[in-house]
Amino acid sequence: MSDVQIFDRVAIIGVGLIGSSFALATRANGLAGHVACYDADADVRDRAENLGVGDSMHADIADAVRDAGLVVVATPVGACGAVAAAMRPHLQPGSIVTDVGSVKGAVLKAMTPHIPEWVHLVPGHPVAGTEHSGPEAGFAELFQNRFAILTPPADANQDAVARLESIWRGMGADVEVMDAEYHDRVLAITSHLPHLIAYTIVATASDLETELEAGPCDDNVVTTREVIKYSAGGFRDFTRIAASDPVMWRDVFLLNKDAVLEMLGRFNEDLTALQRAIRHDDGAALFELFSRTRDIRRGVIEARQAGRFQYTENGKSGDDGA
Amino acid sequence: MSDVQIFDRVAIIGVGLIGSSFALATRANGLAGHVACYDADADVRDRAENLGVGDSMHADIADAVRDAGLVVVATPVGACGAVAAAMRPHLQPGSIVTDVGSVKGAVLKAMTPHIPEWVHLVPGHPVAGTEHSGPEAGFAELFQNRFAILTPPADANQDAVARLESIWRGMGADVEVMDAEYHDRVLAITSHLPHLIAYTIVATASDLETELEAGPCDDNVVTTREVIKYSAGGFRDFTRIAASDPVMWRDVFLLNKDAVLEMLGRFNEDLTALQRAIRHDDGAALFELFSRTRDIRRGVIEARQAGRFQYTENGKSGDDGA
Repeated sequence: MSDVQIFDRVAIIGVGLIGSSFALATRANGLAGHVACYDADADVRDRAENLGVGDSMHADIADAVRDAGLVVVATPVGACGAVAAAMRPHLQPGSIVTDVGSVKGAVLKAMTPHIPEWVHLVPGHPVAGTEHSGPEAGFAELFQNRFAILTPPADANQDAVARLESIWRGMGADVEVMDAEYHDRVLAITSHLPHLIAYTIVATASDLETELEAGPCDDNVVTTREVIKYSAGGFRDFTRIAASDPVMWRDVFLLNKDAVLEMLGRFNEDLTALQRAIRHDDGAALFELFSRTRDIRRGVIEARQAGRFQYTENGKSGDDGA
Repeated sequence: MSDVQIFDRVAIIGVGLIGSSFALATRANGLAGHVACYDADADVRDRAENLGVGDSMHADIADAVRDAGLVVVATPVGACGAVAAAMRPHLQPGSIVTDVGSVKGAVLKAMTPHIPEWVHLVPGHPVAGTEHSGPEAGFAELFQNRFAILTPPADANQDAVARLESIWRGMGADVEVMDAEYHDRVLAITSHLPHLIAYTIVATASDLETELEAGPCDDNVVTTREVIKYSAGGFRDFTRIAASDPVMWRDVFLLNKDAVLEMLGRFNEDLTALQRAIRHDDGAALFELFSRTRDIRRGVIEARQAGRFQYTENGKSGDDGA
């Protein structure tokens, strides 16, 4: 945490969970002289303004980005291209445009054609979030001790990358720089596939409800009510992940399709092998696999990525995200 | 929480996470005059004794169960039958034998032949736990506000069921009574399938490591190191579940095979449909499903089964379990 102003003016495009947290963190740490916000949704604009998320709120994207040294696009990734096109005429020469999307290859591809050569495009992705959405979910500490991954193009301006790194570090994040394609493969296994699986199992459980015809004990049908009631047995963690923003995740899966399908293919092979071991009573195979996975957890704890935030119901201190 | 002694003597067979927590909770709430412990493993016995888990520790199961009004079998479910056989000659007339396993049909089948008719068998399952194992992981508050499910046989002695309910309530648990087969179906979807999937995805990620041949960025291979590093994106929650006791879980999958394979079949159908939606860029289908799963999370929160315990690294206050 510094208290050094890095930009005179920062513009935030989209004030959901990540955008509003970026705005709040920028202000809390004195990293910009002015934080200008924009959102396409009038209701979201009103709510964010009432919450005091930024210094100013604009209904016109041009007013938000004008004179901004840094523009942070915090919309669902599917909207990045259109946002870049809308901002283009108003971007200040020498300014930096970044984003916060969970997919980087597709964002780079969508935004690049709309960014003039006198503006520096440096895509980014904070590996932080909660299952809550909207400006009410934002908080200034969201990025503390979390990774912010930057995926600058090969020919990126190094001074622009360094300034972007500074603002992330100023809000407590650890910055890593990597290739966009590599980012997308890493996140496919660490974030996208876990979300896909969590969404699936919650849907599977939900569909059990439709089979209810009589009292649950009469015909041995499992109902959603029962699933929820006994969710402490493991299911609960999945419901939390599966409560994340639907638009954001739709875009992630559509835009990181190849890497997600590859990881899903690997997962399916492994699940089929485990299914076969259960069917054939192969206890040795099950034991071997369950012992091996313990080591990974140890690694997560040693890397200090295990739960450090309090895990609460009211949303201001979750520790999961994309 | 009461402070009423319900049994003169309680015997705990197996002092891992659940057994030691049951012993500690019994003593903390004054629910028994004496808590006698047994474990087949000499090292575990020593550790539990040093931790002061029970009032006495026995190397011979006969010494532990003699004169006990309640015997709690807290071994992996695969051992329940053998434990029942070993205890049989030493069980006190009118005493209650229960267990804490995540599978109930198989336990009932394995134990029933070894329980004399003058002893009351009332299988049970507390839906509580952490990913940690062994007597060091136990704590007296583990069952507070968690469900303890009892699955008495149809002809069970109602007084015995009522006394067992009392001791669970005395340690803060909510008691539910249901049919063993129904229990096994509910837990297959709320606990067993989530664990199976978590184990699988952690193994899938682990296997990516073996593909490492050069530096990660050279050939775009994702390494386990990267998976751990960026695990905050969703993967972390799975590693926690997949760190649970391997012997316990091997037994659960082997002994609840039919229900697990049925739920796994449903899950696979749903995952295949989602995979197909991604491959065919069907954003509407993805959005519909991701919106639907949010409602289930809302239900979990309303049922007060969302994270109420602090989620820490050191193991005394996890909130997940089987």
